[in-house]
Parts: sequence; structure tokens; C-alpha cells
Amino acid sequence: MASKNRLDKIVSLSKARGFIFQSSEIYGGLSAVYDYGPLGVELKRKLNQAWWASMTQKHENIVGLDAAILMHPTVWKASGHVDSFSDPMIDDKQSKMRYRADLLIEEHIEKLHQNGKAEHAARVQELLDTSGTRKSLNEDLYDIVMQEEIKGPDSGAFDWTEVRQFNLMFKTQFGATAAGEDSEVYIRPETAQGIFVNFTNALNTTRQQVPFGIAQIGKAFRNEVVARQFVFRMREFEQMEMQYFVKPGTDSEEYERWKKERLDWHKSIGIRPSKLRFHDHPEDKLAHYAKEAVDVQYEFPIGWQEVEGIHNRTDFDLGAHQEFSGKKMEYFDPRTQERYIPYVVETSVGLDRTLLMVLCDAYREEEVPGDKEGTVETRTVLKMHPKLAPVTAGIFPLIKKPELQEVARKIQSELSEDFKVQYDEKGSIGKRYRRLDEAGTPFCITVDFDGLEDQTVTIRDRDSMKQERIPVDKAGEVIRSRMKNWTPDEADVEAEAG
Amino acid sequence: MASKNRLDKIVSLSKARGFIFQSSEIYGGLSAVYDYGPLGVELKRKLNQAWWASMTQKHENIVGLDAAILMHPTVWKASGHVDSFSDPMIDDKQSKMRYRADLLIEEHIEKLHQNGKAEHAARVQELLDTSGTRKSLNEDLYDIVMQEEIKGPDSGAFDWTEVRQFNLMFKTQFGATAAGEDSEVYIRPETAQGIFVNFTNALNTTRQQVPFGIAQIGKAFRNEVVARQFVFRMREFEQMEMQYFVKPGTDSEEYERWKKERLDWHKSIGIRPSKLRFHDHPEDKLAHYAKEAVDVQYEFPIGWQEVEGIHNRTDFDLGAHQEFSGKKMEYFDPRTQERYIPYVVETSVGLDRTLLMVLCDAYREEEVPGDKEGTVETRTVLKMHPKLAPVTAGIFPLIKKPELQEVARKIQSELSEDFKVQYDEKGSIGKRYRRLDEAGTPFCITVDFDGLEDQTVTIRDRDSMKQERIPVDKAGEVIRSRMKNWTPDEADVEAEAG
Repeated sequence: MASKNRLDKIVSLSKARGFIFQSSEIYGGLSAVYDYGPLGVELKRKLNQAWWASMTQKHENIVGLDAAILMHPTVWKASGHVDSFSDPMIDDKQSKMRYRADLLIEEHIEKLHQNGKAEHAARVQELLDTSGTRKSLNEDLYDIVMQEEIKGPDSGAFDWTEVRQFNLMFKTQFGATAAGEDSEVYIRPETAQGIFVNFTNALNTTRQQVPFGIAQIGKAFRNEVVARQFVFRMREFEQMEMQYFVKPGTDSEEYERWKKERLDWHKSIGIRPSKLRFHDHPEDKLAHYAKEAVDVQYEFPIGWQEVEGIHNRTDFDLGAHQEFSGKKMEYFDPRTQERYIPYVVETSVGLDRTLLMVLCDAYREEEVPGDKEGTVETRTVLKMHPKLAPVTAGIFPLIKKPELQEVARKIQSELSEDFKVQYDEKGSIGKRYRRLDEAGTPFCITVDFDGLEDQTVTIRDRDSMKQERIPVDKAGEVIRSRMKNWTPDEADVEAEAG
Repeated sequence: MASKNRLDKIVSLSKARGFIFQSSEIYGGLSAVYDYGPLGVELKRKLNQAWWASMTQKHENIVGLDAAILMHPTVWKASGHVDSFSDPMIDDKQSKMRYRADLLIEEHIEKLHQNGKAEHAARVQELLDTSGTRKSLNEDLYDIVMQEEIKGPDSGAFDWTEVRQFNLMFKTQFGATAAGEDSEVYIRPETAQGIFVNFTNALNTTRQQVPFGIAQIGKAFRNEVVARQFVFRMREFEQMEMQYFVKPGTDSEEYERWKKERLDWHKSIGIRPSKLRFHDHPEDKLAHYAKEAVDVQYEFPIGWQEVEGIHNRTDFDLGAHQEFSGKKMEYFDPRTQERYIPYVVETSVGLDRTLLMVLCDAYREEEVPGDKEGTVETRTVLKMHPKLAPVTAGIFPLIKKPELQEVARKIQSELSEDFKVQYDEKGSIGKRYRRLDEAGTPFCITVDFDGLEDQTVTIRDRDSMKQERIPVDKAGEVIRSRMKNWTPDEADVEAEAG
């Protein structure tokens, strides 16, 4: 199965089965914004809860937080976002299209290489790499576009405006009073700052001591210029971040520990280990706040892509907020009597990308025996971890007979105390299995006439398609036990590659 | 305890124990925006999950959705928000303060009554009630302010601008392209429209039939002019909404059913029934989209206030989106072969207000025996439903001895698989109880030397303060069972009133 084709199929399934829809679709959609449908929202909530429990429930020294999306504008001055969270853009006056100037130049260099003009390409690359050292960054980029006579990719014209910086933060007017309270606020472009400005609040209300962490899940917004494929780069997205406050000097050790913990978490939600890897940021490419940085990457159908970032942010953020707010952001260690601004090790994972990773990792097309003997058909199945499945179990009466329906309804009612289950009596059992295979439902329980006599039902396993007869009153227990002991089938990787 | 005083105490406790903080506090705060601290976020998540399970897990015909906050601007034209979601404002040129013109006039009428000028007051009231019938609404309100020579409440001056409408929606610029994609978008002022525009998507991907519901939890934003007390009226808040699509003609019956279901839900999260009531909207005060409307009110320390609204919205919303989008928003009933736009019964509860209701309902100050015999002290305790408590159990070694610590740590590790628990070995047992009483923690488990011999621990109940010795390996089971069977202590209402 070609990779591009495979992603297309997953996108189609997402829409057809109700995982992900384009936002405001009936009005033509809103670019790079998505809504989660009935199955998608359940999967998203379970990922959210799995992460949350792994942080605040399993670690006694990690506490939760839920800061507002709207924050005081000075927060974003302190964080550096007002000054430098922007891209250099240039407009083609003919096509009225806007482009990132540095990317235009990179494409030009690429073309020079393709045309065998390596020396010329190297010269432009040198100019690009030293942009901002001659005049301003914008002017230097503009000069390259002019010198190289780079043409508009859409119009083919050479008719450009100047290069200008466009900030990626969304802005809005806050307050409606005529007096000074009226002001411009930003819609947060990241959740991390909500944690930093609450550092002292969290410290004072929880009796925690360094090292300790603050975990938060929430939306962030970026006015991205280039809308990327599906939920890879969205304008509205959700982050799961944990900022771990440590004593300076212990930061690199904690950074290494969190690298390992986070990779283990991705495995704990059932992602195949062979599809996960680290990608270290080279020292000369580090963000301005980072001393060390690594991505956790997943091998998506379109290649290895970042799902999570782990960063050693030093005391950059707390130091900046101390400077801008005039409030002490220090920790006093009662044991050593030392006072210091803690260093921060950050783990930051995209919830939307994690969800897409789960779909991609779970997606299989398998040849299975058809309804009629001797035939073969293809089944599409999402072999995701049972604890993440939007619907945990299907409950079927074998046929539409009141005595079977009654027992099935009773099981449905009991199991729905603890699980999301789905009653289904329409079509052949085979069709009902296929529908729930596509939803990733790990268990299907069928009530038949044999079972009425000996108080049993059959439970069918999504992955192996094997059926087993179990006592009706053990259904919940069997589900719980299988959910706990599930492991992903690495063999599928081989089969799929073959 | 005076009511105002009581709310102040709850606000203080919220901050001191880490339930709710002012947003961006270190920068002087952002008006009417709040952050949830370590305890608050856990309570909020549990309320969120209790509502979600009650909707999507317990009802087979209710599916979930998570629509984006950013939506296509035409959504808000169709919904009526662009045209009419605004307040008439007037500026005092002296003080530079802005006021709602209709509220200024109401205050003026109130003063006339207080000064015994009933006839004059009635005349102005009549003018206010008929505003918008002479000239425009804004002009009529302005004329009243002029005629009555109403003075600026802050400046005492009579120096006004005209009355203008200010829309309560936050706006932002979306996209960064020079071409047509650049546009103004609104940050949603309610979550309901995300459900309506996805009606067909949900219908097509779930095989549901009318009647069925779509449930959603999410943030909404309103640029409120008047920031109200604490989390009662916030600029950024969270709604839990379920839109139930029904056949026209069955709407009033379904509306009555949902009134009952929703009141029952508030009881199911442990709110004392005597503190809950319905408040019907009189017919002449109904919103433009509503045929019937009722509030579920709770008796807060400052009086009865709305927590939830239940509305019969008819086909107002789906009809409007059909008109504005040109897409059919109909349902075809395969049984009766009828085609129609469903009516909508909406249940809409504020998550933040629900959280405040839980805090208010749980808050008690009780006189209890002190540490020394014969003394009495006051304990503050949050007697909330155990299933909502941010920390489910405290785990204490009686004293700091390795053999006790080791057992306590083992219990902590086991219970934290399923619950958020807190290990505490600092201070007297009495002090440790008090700290967790204020956090609403329902169970405290203490490991002592007697227990080491016979494999038991004591479990102390937050509400009754009674201790019981139980087998150490039954701790989880006892917690689960007590959590399930808990009921609020209505007697406290009497005691408190006495």
C-alpha cells in the first residue's frame, strides 16, 4: 500500500466513521481547523485521560493546572512571543498570494541544485544563512529575492512587495470600557506560559518541593500561514504539557529521565515500538530558550514526524517572568537553605497528532475468510489499544428474537455503567463485526440460544477474530482483564511491509 | 454565618487551597478570567466526566462531539449573534467610563422609587419598556438619559456620548494570506452552534435515528462589560451542552422529560435537593429562539442563581443554517417516510458555575473536639460527593517509622492505579485530617503498629469523622463501595441555618 494512499485512506475513514470532520464544513470549511466527531471525541478523551493519569495520578510530585486561554498581554512580551513569534512574509502583487520569503528562497536554491548549478546554489545558500547580518532580516531576504529575480510560484510574475514580519499569534480586543481597561490580548499560542505564571501559586498551595511538576492539557492557537496536511499543523490544536521544576545542575539528568519516561508512555498506549524514535535537535538549531531538545517521532505514512518535544528550558521562562512582573519566581529549599530560580524540563505532546498516530498505527487492511465458504474479503480494522477504543464493546443478539434481545439489553445496561458500549441487531453478525472493526471496538459479545440455556455468551476478539464462550456474568471482568493484558501485534508490521 | 461572608470564605479557601486563581495574577490579573489550580482542575475534570458519562455512556442515542472554537463567520450570521448579540453602551466623557444604557436607566428608576416618586418612576419605566418603538433602540435609550438628566455614576457629570451597540463576541483576524482568505472570525460565544452545523455529519456517521442527541463540552468566550462576582460571569467559561433532536410535536414532552433528567443529574453529583429548584422563563421574556425555557437554580450564598438552562429551541437553528448554508438540514424517517427539520431540546449547564455550586454546597464549618481533651475547635470541611473529590484518599503512616512508611507507600502505590491519593507523614494525625478535610478528601487511611500485626489499617470518614479498622487488602474495595453509597447530609442544612 503506497504511503500517500495509506494516509488518504485513514483521512477518508476518519470522516466516514466520524473521527474527524472539517470545521464548519457546511459553510465550505475553515482552513486548518477540525472538529472531532462521535468516535474522535471519545478517542481524544481517552488519550487525554491516559496522559493525565500518567502524570498527576501516578506521580505524587506532579500536580495539575487548567489556566485560561486568555492571558495578560505582558505574558507574551516576557515569553518573547510578541517580538519573535513571527514569519517573514512577502506578497506577490499580481496573484495577491503571500509567501514565506525564506521558504521561497530555499525552493529557488533547490531548483538551482536540480539544474546542476551547485556553485550558484551555494552562493545563495550562504546569503540566506547570513540573512540579518547585512541590513535587517527582512531587508536581507528581500535583497536575495530581488538579486535572484525569484518569480511568484502562482503568477510567474516578478512583482513583489517588501518583506514584512507577520506574528503568528491571534489578537483580540478585550473589555468594552471606554477607559484604560480596553486592551489588545492574545489568544495563547502555547499552554506552557500558563504554567510558568502559576508557578508560585502551585508551589504555595500544594506543599510540593523541588523537583516537582505541573501538568496541563489545553487548546492553543497559531495563525499558521501554510495549512499542512490534515491534523499535522492546525491553527487550533491541543497540547498536553508538563513542566518539571528542578534544581539547576540536575537538569540534564532529569531531561534524560523524562526522555525515557515519555517514550515509555507512547508504548503504554499501544504504539508499536518499532515505529517510535528520538530525534535530537543539533546544538546550532536549538530554540532560544532551550539548552537541550529532542523530538519523539512516529513513522507516519508520510514519514517520520514529531509527536512530542522534550526540552531543557533552563531558567529562561521563570527568569523572564520575574523580570517582567517584578515578582520573585524563586524556590527556597528548606533542607539546604538555598534560594534559586528552578530549571525547567518540559515535555510537550500534541494531542491531535497523538490521535492521528494512534489511527495510523492501528489501521490495517487484512484478507479474511468471507461470509460464504471459500471466499476471501478485505476487512479494515483499527487495532488500537482497547483502553483507547471509542466504543469498548458491541452487544448483539444473534437474531431479532425477544428472548435474545432481552438478555443483550441487560448486558448493555450493566456494562454501560463502566464502558461505552453499542447495541446492534441490524444485519448479519459478520456485517456487525466489520462495522465495529472499523471503529476499533475490541470486543463483541453475542447472545445466542445455546447461551440462554447455560448462561453464557460468546466474546469475539477484534484482533484475532477468535470467539470464546464465557459466563454471562463474567463479561465485565473478561473485558477488564483483556484490556489490561493487551499488547500490539508487531508481526503486522512485517506483514504490511511485505 | 452571613451569606456574603460565606461566599468570601469560599473564595478565600479556593485560592488558599488551589481550587481557583485569578488569571495572570503576577501581572495584576485579567478581569473576569480565572485559572484552575491543582485541586480545582481535578474537581473540574471529574464534573466533566460525570456529565459526559451521564450523556454519552448511559444513553445509547446520545453521541459526543468536540467542535473547534474557531468557526466560519457565517455561522454567527445564521445564529443571529452578529446582528443581535450586543449591549447598548454609553460613555461618560468626563470619567471615560462606559455603561450599559438600559441598566443606567433602571438604576435611575430605582432611585426615584426610593425617593417616593412612584408616579415619575412609572413614567420612565414605561418609556424604557417601549424603547425601540419611537426611534431606534439606541436613540430611544439616549433620549431617556437626556430627558431625565441621568448623571454619570462615577463622575457625577452629565456629559454623555451617543448610545452605541457593542457586540459581545471576540473577533480576530484569520489567515495571513494577501488574497481573499484573510478574514475576520469570531471566537465562539457559545458551543451550541458547533453541534448544529455538525448535525448532518453526526447523523450520517452514527446510524442514529430521531430522537437522538449530540453532547459537547467546551470553552466559550464573551466580552462581558460588567465583570461579575467570582466565576459567576466570566469572559472565558466552559459549557456542557446536549442538543436533543426530536420530531416536531413531541418537543414539549421531551422538554419536560429533560427538565426532570437534568435536575436528577444535579442530585446525582451530591447537591442537596433542598437547594435546587426550577425557575421558568415567563413567555414574554423568552429568547428569540425559544418556545419554552427553564433554569435550574441553586441557592448560592448570594441567592438563587442559574446553573443550567433547558430550552425548547424548535427548528430555529437548523432552519437558519439550512437557509444560510444552502445545505439541507433535514431528517428522513425511514419508518414513516416523513422528511422534516427536527426540533431541538437543549440542555446547557455551565461547568464553572457547577463547580462553584459544588464548593458552596460542600462547605461547612463545624465545631469538633480539639486535640486536647475538653477543648473545642472549628474545622472547615468540604463535604462533596466522594466521586468528585480532587484527592480521593490520604495515606498516612501514624509516625515516621520505616516499617509504617513502607506499608503506607505500598498502599499509596496500589491505590494510585485507580485513584488520586496523597501520602502525608508531616504533623499530627489531627492536622493531616484537617488539611484533607479542606480539600474535600473523603477517606484517610492510617497505618499503625496494631495494623502491622493483623494486616489492618484504619479508614477515617471525612463527614462523620468515624474511624474503622479494615483489612489492608480491602482498602480499594471499601473506598469504591462507600463512594457508590454516599448521600449528602441534609441535616447539615438545618444545623447551618440554626
